[in-house]
Amino acid sequence: MKKVRLGIIGLGAQGGAYAGFITDGRVENMEIGAICDNDPAKKDVAKDKYPDVPFYDNYIDMLESGDVDAVVTCVPHYLHPEMGIHALKRDIHALVEKPAGVYTKQVKELNEFAATKPELTFGIMFNQRTNELYQKVKEVIDNGEIGDIRRTNWIITSWWRPQGYYDQSAWRATWEGEGGGVLVNQAPHQLDLLQWICGIPKKVYSNVKYGYQRDIAVEDEVTTLLDYGNGATGVFITCTHDVMGTDRFEILGDKGKIVVDDSKKVTIKRLHKSEKEMSDTMSWADAAKVFMGGDLSEVYSEEVLEFESVWGAQHTAVMENFAANVLDGTPLLAPGSDGINGVALANAIHLSSWLGKEVELPVDEDVYLNELNKKIEEEKRQPIQK
Amino acid sequence: MKKVRLGIIGLGAQGGAYAGFITDGRVENMEIGAICDNDPAKKDVAKDKYPDVPFYDNYIDMLESGDVDAVVTCVPHYLHPEMGIHALKRDIHALVEKPAGVYTKQVKELNEFAATKPELTFGIMFNQRTNELYQKVKEVIDNGEIGDIRRTNWIITSWWRPQGYYDQSAWRATWEGEGGGVLVNQAPHQLDLLQWICGIPKKVYSNVKYGYQRDIAVEDEVTTLLDYGNGATGVFITCTHDVMGTDRFEILGDKGKIVVDDSKKVTIKRLHKSEKEMSDTMSWADAAKVFMGGDLSEVYSEEVLEFESVWGAQHTAVMENFAANVLDGTPLLAPGSDGINGVALANAIHLSSWLGKEVELPVDEDVYLNELNKKIEEEKRQPIQK
Repeated sequence: MKKVRLGIIGLGAQGGAYAGFITDGRVENMEIGAICDNDPAKKDVAKDKYPDVPFYDNYIDMLESGDVDAVVTCVPHYLHPEMGIHALKRDIHALVEKPAGVYTKQVKELNEFAATKPELTFGIMFNQRTNELYQKVKEVIDNGEIGDIRRTNWIITSWWRPQGYYDQSAWRATWEGEGGGVLVNQAPHQLDLLQWICGIPKKVYSNVKYGYQRDIAVEDEVTTLLDYGNGATGVFITCTHDVMGTDRFEILGDKGKIVVDDSKKVTIKRLHKSEKEMSDTMSWADAAKVFMGGDLSEVYSEEVLEFESVWGAQHTAVMENFAANVLDGTPLLAPGSDGINGVALANAIHLSSWLGKEVELPVDEDVYLNELNKKIEEEKRQPIQK
Repeated sequence: MKKVRLGIIGLGAQGGAYAGFITDGRVENMEIGAICDNDPAKKDVAKDKYPDVPFYDNYIDMLESGDVDAVVTCVPHYLHPEMGIHALKRDIHALVEKPAGVYTKQVKELNEFAATKPELTFGIMFNQRTNELYQKVKEVIDNGEIGDIRRTNWIITSWWRPQGYYDQSAWRATWEGEGGGVLVNQAPHQLDLLQWICGIPKKVYSNVKYGYQRDIAVEDEVTTLLDYGNGATGVFITCTHDVMGTDRFEILGDKGKIVVDDSKKVTIKRLHKSEKEMSDTMSWADAAKVFMGGDLSEVYSEEVLEFESVWGAQHTAVMENFAANVLDGTPLLAPGSDGINGVALANAIHLSSWLGKEVELPVDEDVYLNELNKKIEEEKRQPIQK
């Protein structure tokens, strides 16, 4: 195999963008093997833009056509796991879109099946993992440069969406169509980065508002308290109604602190001595001297790094890395099996708000699915008039 | 009365500072009427520094001496309410230190008694209320310039205290001696400002760590989720173990946003149209254009204000305002009756963590006192070895 022939399932905004990246030669070692969409109108679009590419209106047919070595699933979230399984079952490599699914029970099935096919490449489109800024933050944490984590705090409210966004399609922002709001649609990137960089919390308590500032059934406002089980705590905040959105991620360790502003600027403070050593050895009088007008460079060094990210470059980087894994075993930046962690976190945040109490991770997958199904039933009885 | 003769109860760090401010002529319309301390060593200090000022070792004697028109209570928190009541009972004006008390039941008694003496001045040392920065923030909110509040978020971890601070006295950071940690000792200023500016939350859920990074019985780490009962939410975070402390206060309204950094810089964003109007009228395509590289000045204006605060000036401002209220009825910046709000918030944060559930404000004062007394009993059985 010289190039991976990718089958694009779903020629919507995302699938269309990927087709464009490949056609423009922006994805080394990848070509479009086929396109599939069950919307007849998309067939015309495909014929017009990609006249030489085979088109299918059924993805199983495409999987069995011999035209593709791999697929990417640019379809509603609920479908990612079953499409992933069907591909892998036919020895087709699978790159699933994020989130890996809506509820962990289905994602677990995907992961379990994928584990039986270790020779195949199974990836997930966590494009933010290719962001050098977050790679740097992860490296600093993994190297122990700021020590053990005591607190994480991410305010990520820069996901503004007007009502018109939700009104584009009837399935949007419904329990049946999407299985959630900002947690499954916009914030999965941060839910992935948060646990990728800082680990998976043991318990969460959340205050989630459903249809708070938008006429939707699902959540547009989330405040979550995280407990890592070892004393460390955290806060995760997101919403879609802050037009002046904040993106500020702070990580406090016992040897330093990282603050990421706007996913562009990283400020790293490194203590000369660990906080414990400072506490154990400094008198209050000496401490007061330093902190009231003293020279803080005696206490820590500060490094500021600025990054520029190019939208699209992140996606092509995931696609290239995926193709490289298929062709020569280059390690995956975003293994598909990692997808369950962000889904587990989103499920726990939902469930805590539904039950009105703190929940432990992973939450019982049947309890979650049962509650989700109740939301779907309620929604059918009382649909939101968008 | 030309000048208010102040009786200083407690000649510790705070009482000593106030005596110095008055002696240095920094408090208009106030003089030291007498000093009281039950520590014999302080008598020598007073005689040495203030040889002409009467000294008492019993504050009741001072109240009844005719030497003072008003008192300030620079004593352990538990004592503020009873000293306030004893002063007012003898027609002596009372300026209580913050917090007004440890538990609301005792503060309520103080407030109820003070209400029977409306002719007397009853104030509290919320010196941060004199900070022009927070006055400006309150003004912007009260004027409706950023509309109705949707979210508050205060990370105030700049209260670093080494173990040596807690080891200064046996009563420090104990339930019996202080009735709490960072919530009653360091953060009362922010608990006051938060509710003064943004209103009192209806419910709180907290994750509080007791003796997390210090050998103390009380809390050194607090994460709290606030619910204002009208859809608005908030987060309040404080601790004493972050040597690179953060002080960042964000308030999101439906017409704008305020961010206060380090209690020095205020960034005010004012939307040209309300967020609801933007959501209702902007298509997703137009929105995407603006937010992906467009000109954000089309959406909001931004004002940045820098403030310098001088420690001590805030305290003298409260003292001057208190004296002015005594002398000519100038309205109080910090009426004593306001003190209960911060105490109620601190009590609710403690109680939520003790009960492991969300609690409504105000919490039942007897339930709180009962739980506090349990902590005091536990502490007697198993004292922390500092």
